[in-house]
Amino acid sequence: MSSDGQDMRGPVRLDSRDADFDARMDALLAWEGVSDANIQKSVDDIIHAVRHRGDDALVEFSRRFDRVSATSMSDLTLDVDRLAAAYRNLPEEQRQALDASAERIRAYHEHQRTEGWQYTEADGTVLGQKVTPLDSVGVYVPGGKAAYPSSVLMNVMPAHVAGVSELVMVVPTPDDEVNELVLAAAYVSGVTKVFAIGGAQAVAALAYGTETVPCVDKIVGPGNIYVATAKRAVFGQCGIDMIAGPSEILVVSDGGTDPDWLAMDLFSQAEHDELAQAIFISWDDAHIDAVEKSIYKQLPTMPRKQIISTSLGDRGALIKVADKEEAIQLINRIAPEHLELSVGDPDEWLGSIRHAGAIFMGRYTAEALGDYCAGPNHVLPTSGTARFSSPLSVYDFQKRSSIIKCSAEGADKLGRIASVMAHGESLTAHARSAENRLKR
Amino acid sequence: MSSDGQDMRGPVRLDSRDADFDARMDALLAWEGVSDANIQKSVDDIIHAVRHRGDDALVEFSRRFDRVSATSMSDLTLDVDRLAAAYRNLPEEQRQALDASAERIRAYHEHQRTEGWQYTEADGTVLGQKVTPLDSVGVYVPGGKAAYPSSVLMNVMPAHVAGVSELVMVVPTPDDEVNELVLAAAYVSGVTKVFAIGGAQAVAALAYGTETVPCVDKIVGPGNIYVATAKRAVFGQCGIDMIAGPSEILVVSDGGTDPDWLAMDLFSQAEHDELAQAIFISWDDAHIDAVEKSIYKQLPTMPRKQIISTSLGDRGALIKVADKEEAIQLINRIAPEHLELSVGDPDEWLGSIRHAGAIFMGRYTAEALGDYCAGPNHVLPTSGTARFSSPLSVYDFQKRSSIIKCSAEGADKLGRIASVMAHGESLTAHARSAENRLKR
Repeated sequence: MSSDGQDMRGPVRLDSRDADFDARMDALLAWEGVSDANIQKSVDDIIHAVRHRGDDALVEFSRRFDRVSATSMSDLTLDVDRLAAAYRNLPEEQRQALDASAERIRAYHEHQRTEGWQYTEADGTVLGQKVTPLDSVGVYVPGGKAAYPSSVLMNVMPAHVAGVSELVMVVPTPDDEVNELVLAAAYVSGVTKVFAIGGAQAVAALAYGTETVPCVDKIVGPGNIYVATAKRAVFGQCGIDMIAGPSEILVVSDGGTDPDWLAMDLFSQAEHDELAQAIFISWDDAHIDAVEKSIYKQLPTMPRKQIISTSLGDRGALIKVADKEEAIQLINRIAPEHLELSVGDPDEWLGSIRHAGAIFMGRYTAEALGDYCAGPNHVLPTSGTARFSSPLSVYDFQKRSSIIKCSAEGADKLGRIASVMAHGESLTAHARSAENRLKR
Repeated sequence: MSSDGQDMRGPVRLDSRDADFDARMDALLAWEGVSDANIQKSVDDIIHAVRHRGDDALVEFSRRFDRVSATSMSDLTLDVDRLAAAYRNLPEEQRQALDASAERIRAYHEHQRTEGWQYTEADGTVLGQKVTPLDSVGVYVPGGKAAYPSSVLMNVMPAHVAGVSELVMVVPTPDDEVNELVLAAAYVSGVTKVFAIGGAQAVAALAYGTETVPCVDKIVGPGNIYVATAKRAVFGQCGIDMIAGPSEILVVSDGGTDPDWLAMDLFSQAEHDELAQAIFISWDDAHIDAVEKSIYKQLPTMPRKQIISTSLGDRGALIKVADKEEAIQLINRIAPEHLELSVGDPDEWLGSIRHAGAIFMGRYTAEALGDYCAGPNHVLPTSGTARFSSPLSVYDFQKRSSIIKCSAEGADKLGRIASVMAHGESLTAHARSAENRLKR
């Protein structure tokens, strides 16, 4: 279909009754994020340089890759006053929206804060777990076109609510271009230090520390393939969050939602980048026709129509299923990052949904609301990983220590069991260590 | 020191007042688990073969690497009846110890089971999180000398308590040797299927599935460098637990615990393997002397004296600190996997301990009790990773989905905020998707 002088492409149509439906679904969902050997080598070299040359390497790489004019790390360090100024200078409307989003995100995440617990057994032995926030966290924020203030809020706020005291942000400033909204978001969410560095060098600096950049206990936040490869490489030295694949949405409609709304919801995913995936499911053929028609109608009006067209054409789909039950099966097979249940009775569906990062229920709950200000985190498991992983949360910035305190009674009782088990494993020192505490 | 015709080596003595103390601590604690390129290549080849040739590759690798006589996967499949038989045939004493351990581990982990929650805002918007167990989990259990039934209990029970319905265990049987205690432990902890396979091929089978082995959502359990490398490689295809380094203990004494007990506690760690690390801290010089003397006295009596001697000689230390405060600083710097607070007032210490996998409090709480039957998990963060990670738990086998259900009111309020934020990020489809739901 041609429009606006451009070839606009839309999503493929699939039907669960097609003989090759399973294979086509597998192909549609296939995604393997791989770093080739060249990227791996570059990243290893960058990490090595930062570990051994510290600030000098950071400045050198920032000048080379980001074309900054800085000649020392002090030129690339932004203090809290600078962040506060960015916040104060925002247009009133943006400052209010930022405040409102931050406050809602904070309020939701407060529900996730957990406390330790202990219990005492009859013989006086105490068992429990202690919960402690991480000491320090580094947040990676991409620069350039993907510099999103909402991403700052979503990555920093859970750490802040968890009680992390040192919150370090890194954000590259290509060609010395600073994003004021990103700095303002850092201010609102409690960031304590910002360095204008990016790429694998920023990850290396956070993992190992330099003269200027403190090393942190965990690094979170999205980034390009160099950043992701560097995060994998430093994992163990410090913690990392998940390595995200392209963002995706699965919209399910019972036929009762305005097709123009649904098409725009699909666009809101597809406009992120060419690899983003938007899939629509319904059992109503006419409704699918209407959504498809709306896609081609609205697409030429979108500023990012090229990205949307590529995303929908390459990775999008409109899928006809037999009924609600088949829709639920398909949802659980896809395990989508974002699931929009644009149906009249979303609560009836909820119990059957086993795998989804975030569930947007009912016709009024546009996924975009969750991206900014509903409250729950927008950092979600992608590419089917919702089968085994969860949204970013306060839990990711707390850790637990087990507590065991045996009474003399308890040491006697447990020691007898441990001794038998240890001998069964031929671990004599384990057995004797336990037997030392038996009653004579 | 020579004894028993062998050269027995013990831990180095360090003093926090030494000029080079910091550097020596850094050297003592340094650990980087690296897979060399050859291992990486072998593992990649094995994974590729299993993905493409399935059962045939599994049988071939098991014959080659584990010298099994099996000619098909049915020879390498153990059903629940086989596990039950192993359990029934155990000596009474071992069966009782296994039951008691399993029951205590279950009871502790029941405290970790979490439920979802929701709350409703004034305008009717509902926010919350849904908690769901993983569908299926694979547990890797090493074969040969490191085949520990306690490891089966500790890895499987949290998944079982979480509600995981499919629990698949893999355990290699080198030279066709089956460990009956391991099978009995699998039975007691709720394993549903066992395959007698190991190495990178077992990890690949669990991650991708074969004709016989089902693919699972997460793989947990300890293994050698091939297993660890394979787990890293399949991460993303499925979840994995942490990659463990060598096991370690930090024992702190105020001078009031029997030096023979303390020496044996250090041995119980050191006997695991040559790379295990046992460190002792006190501010009482005479007490440190007594512990050192006891080490050399008891060491020749240990069946695993060679392993213990190497571990203590290469990686052990007896450290004199100035006082309790300095001991606490050192604990938090080391962030030990196991921390034994062999002191009279362990509760006074607890609030200051920020980083430790498990804390064993008081003179009666031998670390060995925690290895088997106290209740908390013995799979713990090693090599200082307690700074950012936690014991294996029920939480690792549940995942969360965020829930957002906007009322018409809520969609209007949130839509206005989201629209401003989205325009600030130049994401027009996001803005329009939100604006579609504003009140007219």
